[in-house]
Amino acid sequence: MTLAQLRQMLPHMPFNALLGIDVKEVHDDGVTIECPIRPDLWNATGVVHGGVIATLADVAVGISLMQKHGAEQPATTVELKLNYLRPAGKGSLFARAHLLKTGLTLAVARADVKDDNDNLIATALVTYMYVGRRR
Amino acid sequence: MTLAQLRQMLPHMPFNALLGIDVKEVHDDGVTIECPIRPDLWNATGVVHGGVIATLADVAVGISLMQKHGAEQPATTVELKLNYLRPAGKGSLFARAHLLKTGLTLAVARADVKDDNDNLIATALVTYMYVGRRR
Amino acid sequence: MTLAQLRQMLPHMPFNALLGIDVKEVHDDGVTIECPIRPDLWNATGVVHGGVIATLADVAVGISLMQKHGAEQPATTVELKLNYLRPAGKGSLFARAHLLKTGLTLAVARADVKDDNDNLIATALVTYMYVGRRR
Amino acid sequence: MTLAQLRQMLPHMPFNALLGIDVKEVHDDGVTIECPIRPDLWNATGVVHGGVIATLADVAVGISLMQKHGAEQPATTVELKLNYLRPAGKGSLFARAHLLKTGLTLAVARADVKDDNDNLIATALVTYMYVGRRR
Repeated sequence: MTLAQLRQMLPHMPFNALLGIDVKEVHDDGVTIECPIRPDLWNATGVVHGGVIATLADVAVGISLMQKHGAEQPATTVELKLNYLRPAGKGSLFARAHLLKTGLTLAVARADVKDDNDNLIATALVTYMYVGRRR
Repeated sequence: MTLAQLRQMLPHMPFNALLGIDVKEVHDDGVTIECPIRPDLWNATGVVHGGVIATLADVAVGISLMQKHGAEQPATTVELKLNYLRPAGKGSLFARAHLLKTGLTLAVARADVKDDNDNLIATALVTYMYVGRRR
Repeated sequence: MTLAQLRQMLPHMPFNALLGIDVKEVHDDGVTIECPIRPDLWNATGVVHGGVIATLADVAVGISLMQKHGAEQPATTVELKLNYLRPAGKGSLFARAHLLKTGLTLAVARADVKDDNDNLIATALVTYMYVGRRR
Repeated sequence: MTLAQLRQMLPHMPFNALLGIDVKEVHDDGVTIECPIRPDLWNATGVVHGGVIATLADVAVGISLMQKHGAEQPATTVELKLNYLRPAGKGSLFARAHLLKTGLTLAVARADVKDDNDNLIATALVTYMYVGRRR
């Protein structure tokens, strides 16, 4: 799928729309998504909530799979693990997924979340399972 | 902190307020939080987004630490890992944290996310680091 | 499979035999394995190496699946995550697996590693994938 | 520490010695270790046991920290998470650690385990905690 096609999907994903996520770039091995930081994405200390960052990692991988296989091949998150490295309070967050393996049943990816200044905010490993027969 | 005190904190945590999270019960080793499922917490297939579930696991542990140590002892999520076991589309989600270890520097907890019918939706391990000197 | 049958399998698993792992008990939802601590399982500081503990978590889940499905249903570790809570230097380590979900494709389990005094040394979440058609 | 100095440490780490781990190369951001595959590192199906691979990820990060900070700065594994991507049966395994963050209290690294043909066998995220005051 092209960047334009992926962008048309986002408004139909309610939680992604609630967070304000957009697709920014398509790479050879995944996509980069962007999420402008708003105060309602903060925790009590004025930095982006860990749950938002986990969401970005998950979404970057999901959209990378959609980009690769098309919207007709559903896939669901099996498990997610991430390390939080630095807080982020302003600007935008960017999550870049790298598909490491797309097998017959499972897909595994790394997702790096960075801020406007290219600081690594978090890094994640995410596993998806294809639903139904892999196309 | 008491259940009533914890509940007064929630509106001051913007992302938790955005998701509609409330504290439901205080246990010996952690708390249970509740999040009523709304359509804007869904992904494209009408089930709760994986990022919401990761948020609930993270928050359940964070509020358990606040309950144990008081709001004056800040702590931040170091890392989070979770397995998604079943989808959930309606009703409420409940995240129950069990503090497994609260050391001088780090706290480790398990968090189980269940639906209205007590089905296990996800299970997580979450590590927090105390910020500043542990009280 | 019975405890006696499982015990007969262990010598045919080379790395498990190298570590000295035995099956200790069969429960409703998994098994407990035992590994007597020997000096060559230590790291440089005289406590059991983290890799040994990760191995015990992995093996406890693998043998739990063998117990449930029989040796004819192969399964392979997809991913593993664990938190180390306390060091252990002497006596035996016990890894108790709890199968949380055994689906058509994947199985997810929690494994708790304890020492002789019932101290929680580590806790893990482990995902296996069934190889070939699930029986 | 130099490659030669690191290599002199390995025989004093009993479990690393049992597995036959050696340090192969020092990079700017970590080290590569090597482990020749032997039949007693296999599981029942003739491929390297998942516990061996978890050990290699853990050790690659631990030795990277030793290389960076010196042997006088002890550090201990806090948690480990890894995805298994492909089996490996013969030749050598190489674990390459990339230190992502070395803070005052914690260090986080990625470790990639590859085979002789540069196939990615597993990828891991590993957190260490410095013991005592960080030098």
